[in-house]
Amino acid sequence: MHASRLSLEAAPLAGIPAIEPGADLAALIADAATRTGVKIQGSDVLVVAQKAVSKAENRLRALDDVVPSDRARGLGAKLDKDPRLVQLILDESTDVVRAEHGVLITRTRLGHVCANAGIDSSNVPGGLVSLLPENPDRSARHLRAQLRDRLGEVPAVVISDSFGRPWRLGQTDVAIGCAGLTPLDDRRGHLDSFGHELQATLLAVADEAAAAAGLVRTKEGREAVVVVKGLDRYVTEPDGPGAAALLRPREDDLFG
Amino acid sequence: MHASRLSLEAAPLAGIPAIEPGADLAALIADAATRTGVKIQGSDVLVVAQKAVSKAENRLRALDDVVPSDRARGLGAKLDKDPRLVQLILDESTDVVRAEHGVLITRTRLGHVCANAGIDSSNVPGGLVSLLPENPDRSARHLRAQLRDRLGEVPAVVISDSFGRPWRLGQTDVAIGCAGLTPLDDRRGHLDSFGHELQATLLAVADEAAAAAGLVRTKEGREAVVVVKGLDRYVTEPDGPGAAALLRPREDDLFG
Repeated sequence: MHASRLSLEAAPLAGIPAIEPGADLAALIADAATRTGVKIQGSDVLVVAQKAVSKAENRLRALDDVVPSDRARGLGAKLDKDPRLVQLILDESTDVVRAEHGVLITRTRLGHVCANAGIDSSNVPGGLVSLLPENPDRSARHLRAQLRDRLGEVPAVVISDSFGRPWRLGQTDVAIGCAGLTPLDDRRGHLDSFGHELQATLLAVADEAAAAAGLVRTKEGREAVVVVKGLDRYVTEPDGPGAAALLRPREDDLFG
Repeated sequence: MHASRLSLEAAPLAGIPAIEPGADLAALIADAATRTGVKIQGSDVLVVAQKAVSKAENRLRALDDVVPSDRARGLGAKLDKDPRLVQLILDESTDVVRAEHGVLITRTRLGHVCANAGIDSSNVPGGLVSLLPENPDRSARHLRAQLRDRLGEVPAVVISDSFGRPWRLGQTDVAIGCAGLTPLDDRRGHLDSFGHELQATLLAVADEAAAAAGLVRTKEGREAVVVVKGLDRYVTEPDGPGAAALLRPREDDLFG
Protein backbone atom coordinates (compact mmCIF):
# COMPACT_ATOMS: atom_id res chain seq x y z
CA MET A 1 0.00 0.00 0.00
CA HIS A 2 1.39 3.39 -0.95
CA ALA A 3 1.94 5.95 1.77
CA SER A 4 0.04 8.44 -0.37
CA ARG A 5 -3.10 6.31 -0.10
CA LEU A 6 -2.96 6.56 3.68
CA SER A 7 -3.40 10.25 4.10
CA LEU A 8 -6.64 11.94 4.88
CA GLU A 9 -7.85 15.44 4.08
CA ALA A 10 -11.04 17.04 5.30
CA ALA A 11 -12.34 20.50 4.46
CA PRO A 12 -15.77 22.12 4.46
CA LEU A 13 -17.34 22.79 1.08
CA ALA A 14 -17.70 26.56 0.99
CA GLY A 15 -20.59 28.33 -0.64
CA ILE A 16 -23.56 26.30 0.54
CA PRO A 17 -26.34 28.67 1.59
CA ALA A 18 -28.63 28.23 4.59
CA ILE A 19 -30.80 25.23 3.80
CA GLU A 20 -34.51 25.92 3.35
CA PRO A 21 -37.26 23.31 3.70
CA GLY A 22 -37.49 21.38 0.45
CA ALA A 23 -34.02 22.43 -0.70
CA ASP A 24 -32.34 20.30 -3.35
CA LEU A 25 -29.13 19.37 -1.51
CA ALA A 26 -27.49 17.73 -4.51
CA ALA A 27 -28.02 20.86 -6.59
CA LEU A 28 -26.65 23.09 -3.82
CA ILE A 29 -23.60 20.85 -3.44
CA ALA A 30 -22.93 20.70 -7.17
CA ASP A 31 -23.33 24.48 -7.51
CA ALA A 32 -21.04 25.17 -4.55
CA ALA A 33 -18.39 22.81 -5.91
CA THR A 34 -18.51 24.49 -9.31
CA ARG A 35 -18.36 28.01 -7.90
CA THR A 36 -15.50 27.28 -5.52
CA GLY A 37 -13.54 25.13 -7.97
CA VAL A 38 -13.65 22.05 -5.73
CA LYS A 39 -13.51 18.83 -7.74
CA ILE A 40 -15.63 16.18 -6.04
CA GLN A 41 -14.40 12.74 -7.03
CA GLY A 42 -15.82 9.26 -6.82
CA SER A 43 -13.25 8.39 -4.16
CA ASP A 44 -14.39 11.22 -1.86
CA VAL A 45 -16.69 11.01 1.11
CA LEU A 46 -19.18 13.85 1.59
CA VAL A 47 -20.10 14.21 5.24
CA VAL A 48 -23.40 16.06 5.40
CA ALA A 49 -24.71 17.53 8.65
CA GLN A 50 -27.94 15.95 9.86
CA LYS A 51 -29.46 19.38 10.34
CA ALA A 52 -29.07 20.21 6.65
CA VAL A 53 -30.73 16.95 5.63
CA SER A 54 -33.52 17.36 8.16
CA LYS A 55 -34.28 20.85 6.88
CA ALA A 56 -34.21 19.78 3.24
CA GLU A 57 -36.59 16.95 4.11
CA ASN A 58 -38.84 19.35 5.99
CA ARG A 59 -38.38 17.55 9.29
CA LEU A 60 -39.09 20.72 11.28
CA ARG A 61 -41.93 20.78 13.77
CA ALA A 62 -43.57 23.69 15.60
CA LEU A 63 -43.79 23.02 19.33
CA ASP A 64 -47.07 24.93 19.36
CA ASP A 65 -48.62 22.21 17.20
CA VAL A 66 -47.83 19.43 19.70
CA VAL A 67 -50.33 18.24 22.32
CA PRO A 68 -48.40 16.39 25.01
CA SER A 69 -49.75 13.17 26.48
CA ASP A 70 -49.90 12.50 30.20
CA ARG A 71 -46.70 10.49 29.91
CA ALA A 72 -44.92 13.38 28.19
CA ARG A 73 -46.18 15.79 30.86
CA GLY A 74 -44.92 13.51 33.60
CA LEU A 75 -41.49 13.06 32.04
CA GLY A 76 -41.30 16.76 31.26
CA ALA A 77 -41.98 17.65 34.89
CA LYS A 78 -39.45 15.11 36.12
CA LEU A 79 -36.73 16.25 33.72
CA ASP A 80 -37.56 19.97 33.56
CA LYS A 81 -38.17 19.72 29.81
CA ASP A 82 -40.92 21.20 27.67
CA PRO A 83 -43.61 18.45 27.60
CA ARG A 84 -44.26 19.18 23.92
CA LEU A 85 -40.60 18.45 23.15
CA VAL A 86 -40.84 15.29 25.27
CA GLN A 87 -43.88 14.22 23.24
CA LEU A 88 -41.95 14.62 19.98
CA ILE A 89 -39.05 12.65 21.45
CA LEU A 90 -41.38 9.81 22.50
CA ASP A 91 -43.03 9.83 19.07
CA GLU A 92 -39.63 9.32 17.43
CA SER A 93 -38.53 6.56 19.83
CA THR A 94 -39.23 2.93 20.54
CA ASP A 95 -38.11 3.08 24.15
CA VAL A 96 -36.62 5.20 26.88
CA VAL A 97 -33.09 4.14 27.88
CA ARG A 98 -32.57 6.71 30.68
CA ALA A 99 -34.69 9.53 32.05
CA GLU A 100 -32.74 11.07 34.92
CA HIS A 101 -30.87 14.21 35.91
CA GLY A 102 -32.58 16.27 33.22
CA VAL A 103 -31.41 13.87 30.50
CA LEU A 104 -33.72 11.87 28.25
CA ILE A 105 -31.92 9.15 26.31
CA THR A 106 -34.01 7.04 23.96
CA ARG A 107 -33.66 4.49 21.21
CA THR A 108 -34.97 6.01 17.98
CA ARG A 109 -37.29 4.09 15.69
CA LEU A 110 -34.27 3.24 13.56
CA GLY A 111 -32.22 2.08 16.54
CA HIS A 112 -29.82 4.93 17.32
CA VAL A 113 -29.47 5.61 21.04
CA CYS A 114 -29.00 9.30 21.80
CA ALA A 115 -30.25 12.21 23.86
CA ASN A 116 -33.67 13.62 22.92
CA ALA A 117 -34.00 11.28 19.92
CA GLY A 118 -31.70 13.70 18.10
CA ILE A 119 -34.27 16.50 18.24
CA ASP A 120 -32.93 19.99 18.79
CA SER A 121 -33.60 23.63 18.24
CA SER A 122 -30.21 25.07 17.32
CA ASN A 123 -29.86 26.52 13.84
CA VAL A 124 -33.61 26.42 13.22
CA PRO A 125 -36.05 29.35 13.44
CA GLY A 126 -37.64 30.15 16.80
CA GLY A 127 -40.48 27.89 17.96
CA LEU A 128 -39.36 25.09 15.68
CA VAL A 129 -37.28 22.00 16.36
CA SER A 130 -35.64 19.64 13.91
CA LEU A 131 -36.22 15.90 13.96
CA LEU A 132 -33.68 13.43 12.59
CA PRO A 133 -34.30 12.40 8.98
CA GLU A 134 -36.97 9.71 8.86
CA ASN A 135 -34.46 7.20 7.47
CA PRO A 136 -30.94 8.64 7.23
CA ASP A 137 -29.56 5.65 5.29
CA ARG A 138 -32.27 6.16 2.70
CA SER A 139 -31.48 9.89 2.67
CA ALA A 140 -27.81 9.10 2.07
CA ARG A 141 -28.63 6.72 -0.78
CA HIS A 142 -31.01 9.25 -2.31
CA LEU A 143 -28.48 12.09 -2.11
CA ARG A 144 -25.79 9.85 -3.58
CA ALA A 145 -28.00 8.96 -6.55
CA GLN A 146 -28.76 12.62 -7.15
CA LEU A 147 -25.09 13.53 -6.92
CA ARG A 148 -24.32 10.88 -9.51
CA ASP A 149 -26.67 12.67 -11.89
CA ARG A 150 -25.34 16.13 -11.08
CA LEU A 151 -21.61 15.45 -10.85
CA GLY A 152 -21.07 12.43 -13.06
CA GLU A 153 -19.04 11.16 -10.10
CA VAL A 154 -20.37 9.03 -7.27
CA PRO A 155 -18.85 10.06 -3.95
CA ALA A 156 -19.80 8.25 -0.78
CA VAL A 157 -22.24 10.06 1.50
CA VAL A 158 -22.28 10.10 5.31
CA ILE A 159 -24.96 11.89 7.30
CA SER A 160 -23.53 12.90 10.65
CA ASP A 161 -24.85 14.02 13.99
CA SER A 162 -23.18 14.87 17.30
CA PHE A 163 -23.91 12.35 20.03
CA GLY A 164 -22.89 12.33 23.66
CA ARG A 165 -21.57 9.11 25.16
CA PRO A 166 -21.55 7.38 28.52
CA TRP A 167 -18.48 7.95 30.73
CA ARG A 168 -16.92 10.62 28.56
CA LEU A 169 -17.71 14.32 28.37
CA GLY A 170 -18.38 16.12 25.13
CA GLN A 171 -20.00 15.04 21.91
CA THR A 172 -18.40 13.33 18.97
CA ASP A 173 -19.80 13.17 15.47
CA VAL A 174 -21.13 9.80 14.37
CA ALA A 175 -22.71 8.46 11.20
CA ILE A 176 -26.49 8.16 11.38
CA GLY A 177 -26.66 7.37 7.68
CA CYS A 178 -24.27 6.37 4.94
CA ALA A 179 -24.11 5.11 1.37
CA GLY A 180 -21.09 3.94 -0.58
CA LEU A 181 -18.81 3.74 2.45
CA THR A 182 -17.86 0.56 4.30
CA PRO A 183 -19.32 1.42 7.71
CA LEU A 184 -17.30 -1.19 9.62
CA ASP A 185 -13.88 -2.44 8.58
CA ASP A 186 -13.72 -6.04 9.70
CA ARG A 187 -10.14 -6.81 10.66
CA ARG A 188 -10.87 -10.21 12.18
CA GLY A 189 -8.59 -12.82 10.80
CA HIS A 190 -5.86 -10.30 10.08
CA LEU A 191 -2.56 -11.01 11.73
CA ASP A 192 -0.58 -8.48 13.69
CA SER A 193 3.13 -7.97 13.24
CA PHE A 194 3.83 -10.94 15.53
CA GLY A 195 1.50 -13.24 13.63
CA HIS A 196 -1.29 -13.22 16.25
CA GLU A 197 -4.84 -12.52 15.32
CA LEU A 198 -5.82 -8.92 15.99
CA GLN A 199 -8.10 -8.25 18.94
CA ALA A 200 -9.41 -4.77 18.15
CA THR A 201 -11.11 -6.10 15.15
CA LEU A 202 -13.84 -3.91 13.87
CA LEU A 203 -13.08 -0.28 13.02
CA ALA A 204 -16.14 1.99 12.90
CA VAL A 205 -15.01 3.70 9.69
CA ALA A 206 -18.17 5.74 9.10
CA ASP A 207 -18.15 7.10 12.65
CA GLU A 208 -14.48 8.04 12.42
CA ALA A 209 -15.11 9.77 9.08
CA ALA A 210 -17.91 11.76 10.73
CA ALA A 211 -15.53 12.64 13.59
CA ALA A 212 -12.80 13.82 11.22
CA ALA A 213 -15.35 16.03 9.48
CA GLY A 214 -16.57 17.37 12.83
CA LEU A 215 -13.14 18.83 13.51
CA VAL A 216 -13.36 21.24 10.58
CA ARG A 217 -16.79 22.69 11.26
CA THR A 218 -16.88 26.10 12.91
CA LYS A 219 -18.47 26.82 16.23
CA GLU A 220 -21.56 28.21 14.52
CA GLY A 221 -22.18 24.85 12.90
CA ARG A 222 -23.26 26.33 9.60
CA GLU A 223 -21.22 24.17 7.23
CA ALA A 224 -23.56 21.62 5.74
CA VAL A 225 -20.95 19.56 3.90
CA VAL A 226 -17.38 18.47 4.57
CA VAL A 227 -15.40 16.77 1.81
CA VAL A 228 -13.12 13.99 3.08
CA LYS A 229 -10.45 12.71 0.71
CA GLY A 230 -8.16 9.73 1.20
CA LEU A 231 -10.65 7.04 2.25
CA ASP A 232 -10.64 5.44 -1.22
CA ARG A 233 -10.14 1.97 0.19
CA TYR A 234 -13.42 2.21 2.11
CA VAL A 235 -15.48 3.74 -0.71
CA THR A 236 -17.61 1.21 -2.57
CA GLU A 237 -19.62 1.31 -5.76
CA PRO A 238 -22.69 -0.32 -4.13
CA ASP A 239 -24.43 1.75 -1.49
CA GLY A 240 -23.83 -1.05 1.01
CA PRO A 241 -25.53 -1.70 4.36
CA GLY A 242 -25.49 1.90 5.59
CA ALA A 243 -25.18 3.12 9.17
CA ALA A 244 -27.72 0.48 10.19
CA ALA A 245 -24.73 -1.87 10.26
CA LEU A 246 -23.27 0.21 13.11
CA LEU A 247 -26.16 -0.56 15.45
CA ARG A 248 -25.42 -3.24 18.00
CA PRO A 249 -28.26 -5.76 18.13
CA ARG A 250 -30.30 -4.93 21.19
CA GLU A 251 -30.00 -8.42 22.63
CA ASP A 252 -26.19 -8.12 22.59
CA ASP A 253 -26.12 -4.79 24.36
CA LEU A 254 -25.19 -4.52 28.02
CA PHE A 255 -26.48 -0.98 28.58
CA GLY A 256 -30.24 -1.18 28.06
CA MET B 1 -11.63 32.63 9.91
CA HIS B 2 -9.87 31.61 6.71
CA ALA B 3 -11.05 28.52 4.89
CA SER B 4 -7.44 27.36 4.81
CA ARG B 5 -7.41 27.18 8.61
CA LEU B 6 -10.34 24.82 8.54
CA SER B 7 -8.84 21.96 6.68
CA LEU B 8 -7.41 18.89 8.29
CA GLU B 9 -4.69 16.54 7.10
CA ALA B 10 -3.68 13.28 8.75
CA ALA B 11 -0.90 10.93 7.66
CA PRO B 12 1.18 8.29 9.41
CA LEU B 13 4.79 9.19 10.11
CA ALA B 14 6.73 6.62 8.11
CA GLY B 15 9.98 5.11 9.26
CA ILE B 16 9.29 4.37 12.92
CA PRO B 17 10.63 0.91 13.76
CA ALA B 18 8.93 -1.65 15.99
CA ILE B 19 9.04 -0.20 19.50
CA GLU B 20 11.18 -2.08 22.02
CA PRO B 21 10.79 -1.84 25.79
CA GLY B 22 12.59 1.27 26.98
CA ALA B 23 12.63 2.87 23.53
CA ASP B 24 13.09 6.63 23.33
CA LEU B 25 9.96 7.59 21.43
CA ALA B 26 10.95 11.22 20.96
CA ALA B 27 14.26 10.18 19.40
CA LEU B 28 12.52 7.67 17.09
CA ILE B 29 9.99 10.31 16.03
CA ALA B 30 12.64 12.96 15.40
CA ASP B 31 14.79 10.50 13.43
CA ALA B 32 11.85 9.32 11.33
CA ALA B 33 10.81 12.89 10.57
CA THR B 34 14.33 13.77 9.50
CA ARG B 35 14.76 10.69 7.32
CA THR B 36 11.39 11.05 5.60
CA GLY B 37 11.59 14.82 5.21
CA VAL B 38 8.45 15.45 7.27
CA LYS B 39 8.52 18.83 8.98
CA ILE B 40 6.79 18.58 12.36
CA GLN B 41 5.53 22.00 13.40
CA GLY B 42 4.32 23.50 16.64
CA SER B 43 0.80 23.65 15.24
CA ASP B 44 0.70 19.90 14.56
CA VAL B 45 -0.85 17.19 16.67
CA LEU B 46 1.04 13.90 16.97
CA VAL B 47 -1.35 11.06 17.67
CA VAL B 48 0.67 8.23 19.20
CA ALA B 49 -0.74 4.72 19.51
CA GLN B 50 -1.16 3.55 23.09
CA LYS B 51 0.64 0.32 22.28
CA ALA B 52 3.80 2.18 21.29
CA VAL B 53 3.78 4.17 24.52
CA SER B 54 3.05 1.09 26.62
CA LYS B 55 5.97 -0.76 25.05
CA ALA B 56 8.35 2.16 25.46
CA GLU B 57 7.30 2.39 29.11
CA ASN B 58 7.79 -1.33 29.56
CA ARG B 59 4.16 -1.94 30.43
CA LEU B 60 4.30 -5.53 29.18
CA ARG B 61 3.47 -8.37 31.53
CA ALA B 62 3.96 -12.12 31.19
CA LEU B 63 0.78 -14.02 31.95
CA ASP B 64 2.94 -16.79 33.41
CA ASP B 65 4.00 -14.43 36.20
CA VAL B 66 0.45 -13.75 37.36
CA VAL B 67 -1.20 -15.69 40.21
CA PRO B 68 -4.96 -15.20 39.92
CA SER B 69 -7.08 -14.57 43.01
CA ASP B 70 -10.29 -16.44 43.71
CA ARG B 71 -12.25 -13.48 42.35
CA ALA B 72 -10.25 -13.53 39.11
CA ARG B 73 -10.78 -17.30 38.80
CA GLY B 74 -14.51 -16.86 39.31
CA LEU B 75 -14.83 -14.07 36.77
CA GLY B 76 -12.58 -15.96 34.35
CA ALA B 77 -14.80 -19.03 34.55
CA LYS B 78 -17.95 -16.94 34.11
CA LEU B 79 -16.59 -15.00 31.13
CA ASP B 80 -14.43 -17.72 29.55
CA LYS B 81 -11.32 -15.60 30.00
CA ASP B 82 -7.84 -16.53 31.19
CA PRO B 83 -7.98 -15.91 34.98
CA ARG B 84 -4.46 -14.48 34.87
CA LEU B 85 -5.62 -11.87 32.36
CA VAL B 86 -8.65 -11.18 34.55
CA GLN B 87 -6.33 -10.64 37.51
CA LEU B 88 -4.31 -8.07 35.58
CA ILE B 89 -7.52 -6.33 34.52
CA LEU B 90 -8.73 -6.16 38.13
CA ASP B 91 -5.35 -4.87 39.27
CA GLU B 92 -5.61 -2.01 36.79
CA SER B 93 -9.21 -1.12 37.69
CA THR B 94 -11.17 0.51 40.47
CA ASP B 95 -14.43 -1.25 39.67
CA VAL B 96 -16.22 -3.60 37.34
CA VAL B 97 -18.90 -1.89 35.21
CA ARG B 98 -20.15 -5.02 33.40
CA ALA B 99 -19.13 -8.66 33.46
CA GLU B 100 -21.48 -10.51 31.12
CA HIS B 101 -21.56 -12.32 27.80
CA GLY B 102 -17.80 -12.83 27.79
CA VAL B 103 -17.20 -9.08 28.16
CA LEU B 104 -15.39 -7.46 31.09
CA ILE B 105 -15.81 -3.69 31.18
CA THR B 106 -14.08 -1.86 33.99
CA ARG B 107 -13.18 1.64 35.12
CA THR B 108 -9.41 1.97 35.09
CA ARG B 109 -7.52 3.55 37.97
CA LEU B 110 -7.41 6.78 35.96
CA GLY B 111 -11.13 6.67 35.18
CA HIS B 112 -11.40 5.43 31.60
CA VAL B 113 -14.19 2.91 31.09
CA CYS B 114 -13.30 0.25 28.54
CA ALA B 115 -13.12 -3.47 27.88
CA ASN B 116 -10.38 -5.39 29.72
CA ALA B 117 -8.92 -2.21 31.25
CA GLY B 118 -7.28 -1.65 27.86
CA ILE B 119 -5.10 -4.75 28.24
CA ASP B 120 -4.47 -6.76 25.09
CA SER B 121 -2.10 -9.11 23.41
CA SER B 122 -2.04 -7.94 19.80
CA ASN B 123 1.25 -6.65 18.47
CA VAL B 124 3.19 -7.92 21.48
CA PRO B 125 5.32 -11.09 21.65
CA GLY B 126 3.63 -14.37 22.63
CA GLY B 127 2.80 -14.88 26.30
CA LEU B 128 2.89 -11.15 26.99
CA VAL B 129 0.12 -8.61 27.24
CA SER B 130 0.34 -4.83 27.23
CA LEU B 131 -1.19 -2.67 29.93
CA LEU B 132 -2.21 0.93 29.33
CA PRO B 133 0.44 3.49 30.26
CA GLU B 134 0.35 4.12 34.00
CA ASN B 135 -0.68 7.73 33.43
CA PRO B 136 -1.22 8.55 29.76
CA ASP B 137 -1.57 12.30 30.35
CA ARG B 138 1.79 12.29 32.08
CA SER B 139 3.21 10.22 29.21
CA ALA B 140 1.89 12.79 26.73
CA ARG B 141 3.40 15.69 28.67
CA HIS B 142 6.70 13.86 28.97
CA LEU B 143 6.85 13.04 25.26
CA ARG B 144 5.94 16.61 24.39
CA ALA B 145 8.77 17.97 26.53
CA GLN B 146 11.22 15.58 24.91
CA LEU B 147 10.00 16.52 21.44
CA ARG B 148 10.54 20.17 22.31
CA ASP B 149 14.19 19.36 22.98
CA ARG B 150 14.60 17.22 19.87
CA LEU B 151 12.64 19.20 17.30
CA GLY B 152 12.82 22.76 18.58
CA GLU B 153 9.07 22.75 17.89
CA VAL B 154 6.36 21.84 20.37
CA PRO B 155 3.60 19.86 18.70
CA ALA B 156 0.60 18.72 20.71
CA VAL B 157 0.59 15.04 21.67
CA VAL B 158 -2.42 12.71 21.87
CA ILE B 159 -2.15 9.11 23.04
CA SER B 160 -4.92 7.09 21.45
CA ASP B 161 -6.55 3.74 21.99
CA SER B 162 -9.48 1.95 20.31
CA PHE B 163 -12.51 1.64 22.55
CA GLY B 164 -15.83 -0.07 21.95
CA ARG B 165 -18.99 1.75 22.89
CA PRO B 166 -22.48 0.87 24.08
CA TRP B 167 -25.20 0.55 21.43
CA ARG B 168 -22.85 0.83 18.45
CA LEU B 169 -20.70 -1.82 16.84
CA GLY B 170 -17.04 -1.37 16.13
CA GLN B 171 -14.32 0.51 17.91
CA THR B 172 -13.39 4.15 17.53
CA ASP B 173 -10.12 5.71 18.57
CA VAL B 174 -10.25 7.98 21.59
CA ALA B 175 -7.71 10.04 23.50
CA ILE B 176 -6.50 8.41 26.70
CA GLY B 177 -3.83 11.07 27.13
CA CYS B 178 -3.06 14.46 25.69
CA ALA B 179 -0.85 17.50 26.15
CA GLY B 180 -1.02 20.83 24.34
CA LEU B 181 -4.43 20.18 22.79
CA THR B 182 -7.73 21.59 24.05
CA PRO B 183 -9.49 18.31 24.86
CA LEU B 184 -12.99 19.80 24.91
CA ASP B 185 -14.07 22.81 22.90
CA ASP B 186 -16.69 24.56 24.98
CA ARG B 187 -19.22 26.12 22.64
CA ARG B 188 -21.68 27.10 25.34
CA GLY B 189 -22.71 30.70 25.03
CA HIS B 190 -22.07 30.71 21.27
CA LEU B 191 -25.01 31.70 19.16
CA ASP B 192 -26.19 29.77 16.16
CA SER B 193 -27.06 31.41 12.86
CA PHE B 194 -30.53 32.30 14.21
CA GLY B 195 -29.14 33.88 17.36
CA HIS B 196 -30.11 31.02 19.70
CA GLU B 197 -27.63 29.49 22.08
CA LEU B 198 -26.14 26.28 20.69
CA GLN B 199 -27.28 23.03 22.27
CA ALA B 200 -24.53 20.63 21.18
CA THR B 201 -22.08 22.53 23.23
CA LEU B 202 -18.98 20.61 23.99
CA LEU B 203 -16.95 19.08 21.16
CA ALA B 204 -14.60 16.26 22.24
CA VAL B 205 -11.72 17.59 20.15
CA ALA B 206 -9.06 15.17 21.42
CA ASP B 207 -11.29 12.15 20.76
CA GLU B 208 -12.12 13.35 17.25
CA ALA B 209 -8.41 13.93 16.55
CA ALA B 210 -7.72 10.35 17.67
CA ALA B 211 -10.52 9.14 15.39
CA ALA B 212 -9.19 11.04 12.38
CA ALA B 213 -5.78 9.47 12.99
CA GLY B 214 -7.36 6.03 13.34
CA LEU B 215 -8.58 6.22 9.75
CA VAL B 216 -5.06 6.31 8.32
CA ARG B 217 -3.59 3.39 10.22
CA THR B 218 -3.32 0.12 8.32
CA LYS B 219 -5.00 -3.10 9.31
CA GLU B 220 -1.80 -4.37 10.86
CA GLY B 221 -1.78 -1.47 13.28
CA ARG B 222 1.94 -0.98 13.12
CA GLU B 223 2.04 2.80 12.66
CA ALA B 224 3.01 4.31 15.99
CA VAL B 225 2.50 7.95 15.06
CA VAL B 226 0.07 9.90 12.91
CA VAL B 227 0.72 13.58 12.21
CA VAL B 228 -2.47 15.68 12.13
CA LYS B 229 -2.24 19.17 10.66
CA GLY B 230 -4.89 21.88 10.64
CA LEU B 231 -5.96 21.86 14.29
CA ASP B 232 -3.95 25.00 15.07
CA ARG B 233 -6.86 26.66 16.84
CA TYR B 234 -6.97 23.85 19.41
CA VAL B 235 -3.20 23.59 19.99
CA THR B 236 -2.03 25.41 23.12
CA GLU B 237 1.34 26.33 24.49
CA PRO B 238 0.51 25.03 28.00
CA ASP B 239 0.02 21.27 28.27
CA GLY B 240 -3.49 21.89 29.61
CA PRO B 241 -5.78 19.52 31.51
CA GLY B 242 -5.13 16.44 29.39
CA ALA B 243 -7.54 13.64 28.58
CA ALA B 244 -8.56 13.60 32.24
CA ALA B 245 -10.87 16.46 31.27
CA LEU B 246 -12.77 14.06 28.99
CA LEU B 247 -13.85 11.83 31.87
CA ARG B 248 -17.40 12.38 33.03
CA PRO B 249 -17.52 12.67 36.82
CA ARG B 250 -18.79 9.38 38.09
CA GLU B 251 -21.64 10.92 40.04
CA ASP B 252 -22.99 12.48 36.82
CA ASP B 253 -22.90 9.27 34.84
CA LEU B 254 -26.07 7.30 34.12
CA PHE B 255 -24.38 4.07 33.06
CA GLY B 256 -22.55 2.80 36.15
